[in-house]
Amino acid sequence: MVKPGKHPDAAGASIAAIEAGGTKFNCAIFSAAGQLLASTRIPTTSPDDTLAKSLSFFHDHAEKHGSLVAAGIASFGPLDLDPKSPNCGSIFSTPKPGWSGVNIQQAFREGLGVTTLIDTDVNCAALAEGRFGAARECNTFCYITVGTGIGVGIISDKKPIGGSGHPELGHTRVPRAPNDKFDGRCPYHRDCVEGLACGPAIMDRWGERAENLADDHTAWEMEAYYIASLCMNIIYTVRPEKIVIGGGVFERKTLYVRVREHLAKLLADYALTPVERDLKRFICEPGLTETAPGLLGALELARVVADLQCGGHDAR
Amino acid sequence: MVKPGKHPDAAGASIAAIEAGGTKFNCAIFSAAGQLLASTRIPTTSPDDTLAKSLSFFHDHAEKHGSLVAAGIASFGPLDLDPKSPNCGSIFSTPKPGWSGVNIQQAFREGLGVTTLIDTDVNCAALAEGRFGAARECNTFCYITVGTGIGVGIISDKKPIGGSGHPELGHTRVPRAPNDKFDGRCPYHRDCVEGLACGPAIMDRWGERAENLADDHTAWEMEAYYIASLCMNIIYTVRPEKIVIGGGVFERKTLYVRVREHLAKLLADYALTPVERDLKRFICEPGLTETAPGLLGALELARVVADLQCGGHDAR
Repeated sequence: MVKPGKHPDAAGASIAAIEAGGTKFNCAIFSAAGQLLASTRIPTTSPDDTLAKSLSFFHDHAEKHGSLVAAGIASFGPLDLDPKSPNCGSIFSTPKPGWSGVNIQQAFREGLGVTTLIDTDVNCAALAEGRFGAARECNTFCYITVGTGIGVGIISDKKPIGGSGHPELGHTRVPRAPNDKFDGRCPYHRDCVEGLACGPAIMDRWGERAENLADDHTAWEMEAYYIASLCMNIIYTVRPEKIVIGGGVFERKTLYVRVREHLAKLLADYALTPVERDLKRFICEPGLTETAPGLLGALELARVVADLQCGGHDAR
Repeated sequence: MVKPGKHPDAAGASIAAIEAGGTKFNCAIFSAAGQLLASTRIPTTSPDDTLAKSLSFFHDHAEKHGSLVAAGIASFGPLDLDPKSPNCGSIFSTPKPGWSGVNIQQAFREGLGVTTLIDTDVNCAALAEGRFGAARECNTFCYITVGTGIGVGIISDKKPIGGSGHPELGHTRVPRAPNDKFDGRCPYHRDCVEGLACGPAIMDRWGERAENLADDHTAWEMEAYYIASLCMNIIYTVRPEKIVIGGGVFERKTLYVRVREHLAKLLADYALTPVERDLKRFICEPGLTETAPGLLGALELARVVADLQCGGHDAR
């Protein structure tokens, strides 16, 4: 399932990877070489129940697969990732009942007794695209997911960028598309890019689920315009070598062509590098489709920890 | 003039710093300890003339100040900074006659015979604010200058961020301020943030130079709104620990209060870290006022080179 990479391959060592989502926790044990050894799905209910069941899975299965050396968590957010914060590793305020302030990183670190790294689901998906997917040749790149929400992870030198926290680019501001009278649905910012262009915004605006709209419906032109604006702002901020776009909304493949068209017009060929000019390569689909990219990203995070223990990389 | 920092202090060694601007080249020789030893201003005319006169200054003065060990250049742009590009170090297309495609870095490297680093004037000003100015305690921070244009430098771990190029955040897209009917003046993007909020845009919109507008003129409210949108997008992208704002337009000190007010409303307290919530500290004036920050940034760049030669830092 996972291609083995370069890493410390301790015989009998295994790695815990957790994709902590709003509806389920995907828990998996991988060999140090990246082979899937065991996995389970636990419904996300109360924090106590969900965390206890997840830990039980690891306690029940870890021994037969060699000792755990590290854990990586790809979590829903927003997360406190500020290394200077006493609550680093915890979930900030979330509408999910009971989960505000829960320190997921601490729960797994203490429950498993191994070094544990946590990052957002989208940062982890970005890491996975860089290691196994569409951005393998890139040093600086970006992964956008457009679904129930809009999330963006930006990787530079194998690490997610972010100073005192993680990006929340879904909540940045872009101009209105011509003739768009829709109010926007973000409960915080109303018409940020997520409020205007996430899947539920398409449904609210047109009164129809996105997947039921025909390829030539105006909805797609407008969606592409918003995502092109988001891409333009990312380009002129971090100058990525590639932008990978995934998520449920982008299962509509015609969007890729439309985003490239709008983006070319918006950029107007100003100060572009050759990689940015080659839009067909620059804006692309994810390389990982079958396997949950968050889970592979959690594995990737844990590998960083494992390398760290051998005196290797530099984790944030 | 410059506070000495930690660096390799070779006896008799000196550093060349060049602030290459559209109207003049500021050339200076500093001791390795950061003392200004000699300086001159050369008008920016043709590339041949300007570069020859700049090199003559260094040839005439360098010997009496010990041998040059490195040079740093803070240049107008846009610049090709892609390490994979054969033209790395050159100016892209610019309206300045004769300067498109000129490789300034190569001219100084070959003319002075020392390792030479180049970056944009705004990235260098940001480096200088981090080393000597308002962002000394920050690991990730941002410097915005609002004047004839709008430029942004983002520093993370002492290095300007940027994958295949440097940021061009003045050309990002933000929503229109309520009731703003001004077309925008960017020749490439019309109503990007620079097109709507640079100094000349204020003059074009209101028919009066910015410095002649009263403190309670609507112009300042609108200006603050645009810069607050820019700050919000930067916050949700790189999560800086501080945003330093300078440039001619921000000599109007009331703008700082207005930017903080708009920013607080726009952010709506969503997913903020404690440093971001403390807006009075977070949005601040530059620490460097008397000395050209670009020149100090060029010195800072050259120090990185000097450190490199001693096996120190990691330059891009």
